[in-house]
Amino acid sequence: MAEDFTDTKSSNQMWGGRFASGPSAIMEEINASIGFDKKLYAQDIRGSKAHATMLAHQGIISAEDKDKILHGLDTILSEIEAGQFVFSRKLEDIHMNIEARLADLIGSAAGRLHTARSRNDQVALDFRLWVKEELQRTEQALSGLIAAFLDRAEEHADTVMPGFTHLQTAQPVTFGHHCMAYVEMFGRDRQRVRHAIEHLDESPIGAAALAGTGYPIDRHMTAQALGFREPTRNSIDTVSDRDFALEFLSIASIAAVHLSRLAEEIVIWSTPQFGFIRLSDAFSTGSSIMPQKKNPDAAELVRAKTGRINGSLIALLTVMKGLPLAYSKDMQEDKEQVFDAAESMELALAAMTGMVTDMTIRTDKMKAAAGSGYSTATDLADWLVREAGLPFRDAHHVTGNAVAMAEKKGCDLAELSLEELQSINAAITADVFNVLTVEASVASRKSFGGTAPSEVRKQIAWWRARN
Amino acid sequence: MAEDFTDTKSSNQMWGGRFASGPSAIMEEINASIGFDKKLYAQDIRGSKAHATMLAHQGIISAEDKDKILHGLDTILSEIEAGQFVFSRKLEDIHMNIEARLADLIGSAAGRLHTARSRNDQVALDFRLWVKEELQRTEQALSGLIAAFLDRAEEHADTVMPGFTHLQTAQPVTFGHHCMAYVEMFGRDRQRVRHAIEHLDESPIGAAALAGTGYPIDRHMTAQALGFREPTRNSIDTVSDRDFALEFLSIASIAAVHLSRLAEEIVIWSTPQFGFIRLSDAFSTGSSIMPQKKNPDAAELVRAKTGRINGSLIALLTVMKGLPLAYSKDMQEDKEQVFDAAESMELALAAMTGMVTDMTIRTDKMKAAAGSGYSTATDLADWLVREAGLPFRDAHHVTGNAVAMAEKKGCDLAELSLEELQSINAAITADVFNVLTVEASVASRKSFGGTAPSEVRKQIAWWRARN
Amino acid sequence: MAEDFTDTKSSNQMWGGRFASGPSAIMEEINASIGFDKKLYAQDIRGSKAHATMLAHQGIISAEDKDKILHGLDTILSEIEAGQFVFSRKLEDIHMNIEARLADLIGSAAGRLHTARSRNDQVALDFRLWVKEELQRTEQALSGLIAAFLDRAEEHADTVMPGFTHLQTAQPVTFGHHCMAYVEMFGRDRQRVRHAIEHLDESPIGAAALAGTGYPIDRHMTAQALGFREPTRNSIDTVSDRDFALEFLSIASIAAVHLSRLAEEIVIWSTPQFGFIRLSDAFSTGSSIMPQKKNPDAAELVRAKTGRINGSLIALLTVMKGLPLAYSKDMQEDKEQVFDAAESMELALAAMTGMVTDMTIRTDKMKAAAGSGYSTATDLADWLVREAGLPFRDAHHVTGNAVAMAEKKGCDLAELSLEELQSINAAITADVFNVLTVEASVASRKSFGGTAPSEVRKQIAWWRARN
Amino acid sequence: MAEDFTDTKSSNQMWGGRFASGPSAIMEEINASIGFDKKLYAQDIRGSKAHATMLAHQGIISAEDKDKILHGLDTILSEIEAGQFVFSRKLEDIHMNIEARLADLIGSAAGRLHTARSRNDQVALDFRLWVKEELQRTEQALSGLIAAFLDRAEEHADTVMPGFTHLQTAQPVTFGHHCMAYVEMFGRDRQRVRHAIEHLDESPIGAAALAGTGYPIDRHMTAQALGFREPTRNSIDTVSDRDFALEFLSIASIAAVHLSRLAEEIVIWSTPQFGFIRLSDAFSTGSSIMPQKKNPDAAELVRAKTGRINGSLIALLTVMKGLPLAYSKDMQEDKEQVFDAAESMELALAAMTGMVTDMTIRTDKMKAAAGSGYSTATDLADWLVREAGLPFRDAHHVTGNAVAMAEKKGCDLAELSLEELQSINAAITADVFNVLTVEASVASRKSFGGTAPSEVRKQIAWWRARN
Repeated sequence: MAEDFTDTKSSNQMWGGRFASGPSAIMEEINASIGFDKKLYAQDIRGSKAHATMLAHQGIISAEDKDKILHGLDTILSEIEAGQFVFSRKLEDIHMNIEARLADLIGSAAGRLHTARSRNDQVALDFRLWVKEELQRTEQALSGLIAAFLDRAEEHADTVMPGFTHLQTAQPVTFGHHCMAYVEMFGRDRQRVRHAIEHLDESPIGAAALAGTGYPIDRHMTAQALGFREPTRNSIDTVSDRDFALEFLSIASIAAVHLSRLAEEIVIWSTPQFGFIRLSDAFSTGSSIMPQKKNPDAAELVRAKTGRINGSLIALLTVMKGLPLAYSKDMQEDKEQVFDAAESMELALAAMTGMVTDMTIRTDKMKAAAGSGYSTATDLADWLVREAGLPFRDAHHVTGNAVAMAEKKGCDLAELSLEELQSINAAITADVFNVLTVEASVASRKSFGGTAPSEVRKQIAWWRARN
Repeated sequence: MAEDFTDTKSSNQMWGGRFASGPSAIMEEINASIGFDKKLYAQDIRGSKAHATMLAHQGIISAEDKDKILHGLDTILSEIEAGQFVFSRKLEDIHMNIEARLADLIGSAAGRLHTARSRNDQVALDFRLWVKEELQRTEQALSGLIAAFLDRAEEHADTVMPGFTHLQTAQPVTFGHHCMAYVEMFGRDRQRVRHAIEHLDESPIGAAALAGTGYPIDRHMTAQALGFREPTRNSIDTVSDRDFALEFLSIASIAAVHLSRLAEEIVIWSTPQFGFIRLSDAFSTGSSIMPQKKNPDAAELVRAKTGRINGSLIALLTVMKGLPLAYSKDMQEDKEQVFDAAESMELALAAMTGMVTDMTIRTDKMKAAAGSGYSTATDLADWLVREAGLPFRDAHHVTGNAVAMAEKKGCDLAELSLEELQSINAAITADVFNVLTVEASVASRKSFGGTAPSEVRKQIAWWRARN
Repeated sequence: MAEDFTDTKSSNQMWGGRFASGPSAIMEEINASIGFDKKLYAQDIRGSKAHATMLAHQGIISAEDKDKILHGLDTILSEIEAGQFVFSRKLEDIHMNIEARLADLIGSAAGRLHTARSRNDQVALDFRLWVKEELQRTEQALSGLIAAFLDRAEEHADTVMPGFTHLQTAQPVTFGHHCMAYVEMFGRDRQRVRHAIEHLDESPIGAAALAGTGYPIDRHMTAQALGFREPTRNSIDTVSDRDFALEFLSIASIAAVHLSRLAEEIVIWSTPQFGFIRLSDAFSTGSSIMPQKKNPDAAELVRAKTGRINGSLIALLTVMKGLPLAYSKDMQEDKEQVFDAAESMELALAAMTGMVTDMTIRTDKMKAAAGSGYSTATDLADWLVREAGLPFRDAHHVTGNAVAMAEKKGCDLAELSLEELQSINAAITADVFNVLTVEASVASRKSFGGTAPSEVRKQIAWWRARN
Repeated sequence: MAEDFTDTKSSNQMWGGRFASGPSAIMEEINASIGFDKKLYAQDIRGSKAHATMLAHQGIISAEDKDKILHGLDTILSEIEAGQFVFSRKLEDIHMNIEARLADLIGSAAGRLHTARSRNDQVALDFRLWVKEELQRTEQALSGLIAAFLDRAEEHADTVMPGFTHLQTAQPVTFGHHCMAYVEMFGRDRQRVRHAIEHLDESPIGAAALAGTGYPIDRHMTAQALGFREPTRNSIDTVSDRDFALEFLSIASIAAVHLSRLAEEIVIWSTPQFGFIRLSDAFSTGSSIMPQKKNPDAAELVRAKTGRINGSLIALLTVMKGLPLAYSKDMQEDKEQVFDAAESMELALAAMTGMVTDMTIRTDKMKAAAGSGYSTATDLADWLVREAGLPFRDAHHVTGNAVAMAEKKGCDLAELSLEELQSINAAITADVFNVLTVEASVASRKSFGGTAPSEVRKQIAWWRARN
């Protein structure tokens, strides 16, 4: 049937548009990866240098060839970084682009570089190196965001705000305490990143096509040269495995959920109705016509990145589902998902660090909201249990009556008089006022991890020692 | 806190790398959409021309201004298509890029174009127009793939192959019949595409920011000019709605599942063990060292695109989840998902059409496989029920014995002698051999939609009349 | 190796827990579907009755056998509906459970029911019938929710509230208009449901195992008896196809996104900070201690169902990815995803219909919020363009100054005096006050689909005629 | 509007079916979690006992009350495990069901148990305990599967089979080596499980509603009593956090991908065309009519579970996306996803362990396939480079010619005579035959992690020491 395509005219009719030249155009477009895998040039060159050095050390290639190869690769690196390298889609991928250029530069010695390796272990190496470095960048970015929150937490360890459940005011907390909740989240993300680095820290190079090689290579030497803990233990698995990419995407997805929760709070808190914070001009967009309006665009975009990153995770999980061992071409779809998620994550972490650092906290609005809604009702109930010895159920009943009385009077619980309170339950004493203000309420919650400023400061110190 | 960023040095330390210039660099990078929405230039210009024409018709702008606007927009279109237009990231998106250039070209009249509209309805229009056109392209591409299958089905209406369940040989079918199964799948996809076009065929322009406008615009006029059935009926919904994008991604995901099933069969059938087909060189990659080897790269990549497209669907569903009305910036994430899925779908459909068209069908291998594995055992059982009046259960028992006998003799059911068969059940007559060959088996299944060549040809004719 | 499992003790050690009896327990648990597919009992019996009737009509079974079969099946239906039927996991699925019971009841005639069909087309029929009925239920539920919104929209066609973009006040709209945005969304969902019914309206029965059958069956007769438009056209596709399930899940996912947006608004609007609505006690939970607190639990749960339904969609897309034709056991995973999503959807639609119907609209709060934030600033700018002939850019500048003046004075735009306004731009006349109130603003937006009460009422009428 | 529902008749009409009793029926159905969270009964009771003991130790409740509470809880545990406990949906969840029963049993002391805690930290505790235990069960199950593979690898360290890339024969490997690839995969899964346990090993109890408590509780004491490393550090995060569930689902999703790859190989290898393995009867289903047929149902179902588990991951990621702190009711959707994925994972691991253990390896089929397809062509090329000093490119050319000659003769490379080989390149010596057989080929690949039996045995020993 292939002959259909020898006639340019008929294939033009059949394919039209961007596939006008027929099957070869389609195949080139679906097959070539250079459009995205050129991002791996530094890793590819680094890996080739380590491989060549090892080959020479083991006597598999000559020292002279090795020197030519190293010099040629350095030249190519310079060319790429100077923007002078011409990438060719005909040469499909970064490996063939560099290899072809190396042959131009150093002639037949270039051919010896590929001894005892294959594109299968080469791409596994390049990509794994890239993911490892990206995880290290992510670790740093998370530390930066944690640092930003620690600063705001310290600054606002005493700032009272409403603690929400169901987005309804539940109990007063401090803004410092709220900030530290995010420190915990991003701290867990960072811990997962560190373990992911540990999980992937094995060198693929030397697995060759899938079966290993008969050349007397030293995989421990290349592993060490490339900064890996050790070489991988099974050559089939080595070229089949993309766990490191899936794990990166999983971790990024969970971190993105954290970022989306923070973004949602920024959006809600920036409304005139809440008014708890005011974003800096740098991270919001205005309106020439409504100068008071500030749209939290950056927060909304961070929130949206969650979808994108989750999508990349599902994409790669689906690509890998049901693939028989060892390498299948399907796996070429791994890189774009990871690159895209990595870029989104970097950008989202940078934007959030910026927003957290320079947003204005409107402590007056926070405090006013904390005090409304009878947020200290549970403090009253607890006081009745603790100090007046009432059973829980009775204490709740009394508290309900007190709230109802305050509601009728249009005042806060702390604004009821002692007499009024005693008319509900005689066991109440003036001491109760020590728990009815929002400040007293937060100060009292000194349980480990509680919202009391003293506790929050302890946790800040704990984290400062670890950031 | 914003002052941290006035000192370039400290912000360099804080952000490093690509965000060295601090918040403004981050914000520009996260906020700008011109990198991808420039793809909408033609739709944006078309929409603006229709809008300007309507504004003049309604007396909202002068005819003179309209003429300037139309002329200016045509100039910009030419500039973009000639590759001479300089897109600016500072100007954020395609709308502002074009608007700014229009002001350069025609001066203050440019400012009147934006009367009675907003970026919210403008982007909704541009994107909806693009998706509509992409759906039309998809419809055509599906028809092309269906046509390719109809040709192969006709050619192989009599070619016998094993019908599989659980990837085990179950009953003989024809390859033509198998091809027609895919015609049904892609036919359903096409039907969904057509209905999706019907669902989105309403014009957003004139919804303005979210509330409509007080200008006396004529939305039916712009709707008609842009080829829409009618204008949308609710301005808030119009700027909030991305159903058309979600529906596109849903349909693409289901079609991608169909493509992945076909790709899986191509991969399995291309193995030396199956050997049912041989891909053309155009759609496979070889090995300089193993000239007999053909890797089904294109099929594997099509299979992998399923993950990518599903990922885009989940991404946008997640982005849209829980967004309050009307427009939120999160929605800017809609376009890249759709563009990417559309490109994958176009490419996958083209590659599959090519593979189906020019692959070699190895009818000998198919027939040999169809005949092994006692695939006509159910035909024997059916014959016993139908012709010899045995109850189903007894017929199954007799058949099991016949298969066991054939297995012991190392032959096919059709190779057992009449005597041997009668030794198992005396009611068997020579007529039974009319159903024991694979050809007889397929020819007998004449129920509507069955595998008999006569039935397959009827269905081909039915589809030819509709393709 | 199987012998390992003959020794109960060792297999106990190996498997422990719920798999103590070894492979047979595992296999039974992973293989049996009766736990969930018993939900299909009515469809299975209905399908069998239609099949038996057709077999008798075609002379494939006797009228006597048919009568026994129909009577037996009716008995089984009664037993199941009376809760007297004992489902057995040993019998794996609903088909075998019913078939075995039929044999108990009517003896050997039961065996003839399975003539010219297989479990493959039987399950395809049962499940397709169920999905069709569920789509019809969904259509009704959507109509119910639309009706609820139409009532609230009519009631509040004049109620002014802030129209939001980025959750910031943008322009005033009416609550009726906002309700009608949801009518559009759920109307689109309903249209998709109707088309999905059209897409699946083909009868699978008679496709048999995968190849059709040699019996002289009449598939048009069974199709008609079961209420399908026509029989399917390809027997391989018929037993391989789960598009109807995927399409159901796609549609449900998009509808779930709509429900989640509404839920999000209910949650935000129920906060003391917004206070736009008050849920009825029926759909919120309170606190014995904080009687004023109402948690919007039902809305939060509806919002969360989005995740669940999206998850089911991805689950089935992933299950189907890369399955070779025809039937594979993987497809048994189709039903639980659909059943779960259907239940979530029914529940979410019912809960939302309830919440929308009986929530209290706090028109005072809505109006107050609409008026704050200079939400009529664009009306002022539009007035300046329209009435005073200012270019857009100048009009924006003047408006910005007016807002700044009002902000300084702590008043609304409409509260500035004519003199004050004229001090900014002399062209302003007293007529401007006709657009500066929120009522005037909404009344002016009479473009088709705009927020003007007159327009909203037209759209309500349009929908009433179609609901 | 709520009054609509007081009239039973109208609400019947409105809701119909299962919601006939109106809003209360809907709310009960959407709100109650007892249907699934009763699975947490043991964790709930364990947590309550630790909490009561701590309260007494700290003097917050009396020793007498504590004793009553512990005794009552033990009674309830017995009742539940004996199947005598009546769960009530009116009481919503497992916590209230147990609390209400405790009040029945011990009276007012029951009320004191809830001192200094809330349902928010209680459910966080129960669920975290359950996930931790499930992770421990998963760790064990993975070790069981690894052990099964180590046994088969040892048994087949010398069994030659084709190594595939693109499902095309590439180079010979050993089946032992192939088994060890899965050991690496499941070993990584196990490592992730261990780290996940480490990540979640903090006790939530004492975080109370969200702010901590003013009671002098000792959270380190309860943490220790419940086997946690330490208490959580931030009470808001504690009740908001579901990372442990997301991480469980992420890990399960990656492991499910591994299982799906194995399942795919089992399905393909079980076809008559491949015939590499034969599943035991325990894990396949047969056909009464085709006794030779064995459907790999269990493998197909394991493959399908990937979709289900990925779906659960996406479901919970989506549920958590954009939730403001602290507790929202959306989070109630966390448990069913985790329970379902856990059950699927347990079942899939058990089924795979069973299949791997008792499947028959058809070494003859494997070896025959390994030898066909010129799978040692790269060995010839490597020999030419290594022994004859040819540059890579020339060696490839010579090898291509040799394969072409063998193909023409219809024989294997090893069956060409020395003369024939030398006619292609004179440098070839008889030594070449040492690498042309599949046994020689695999034996030669002794690089670390390579397929040589000696290397495979080393890796088996390494893993035995760690399993």
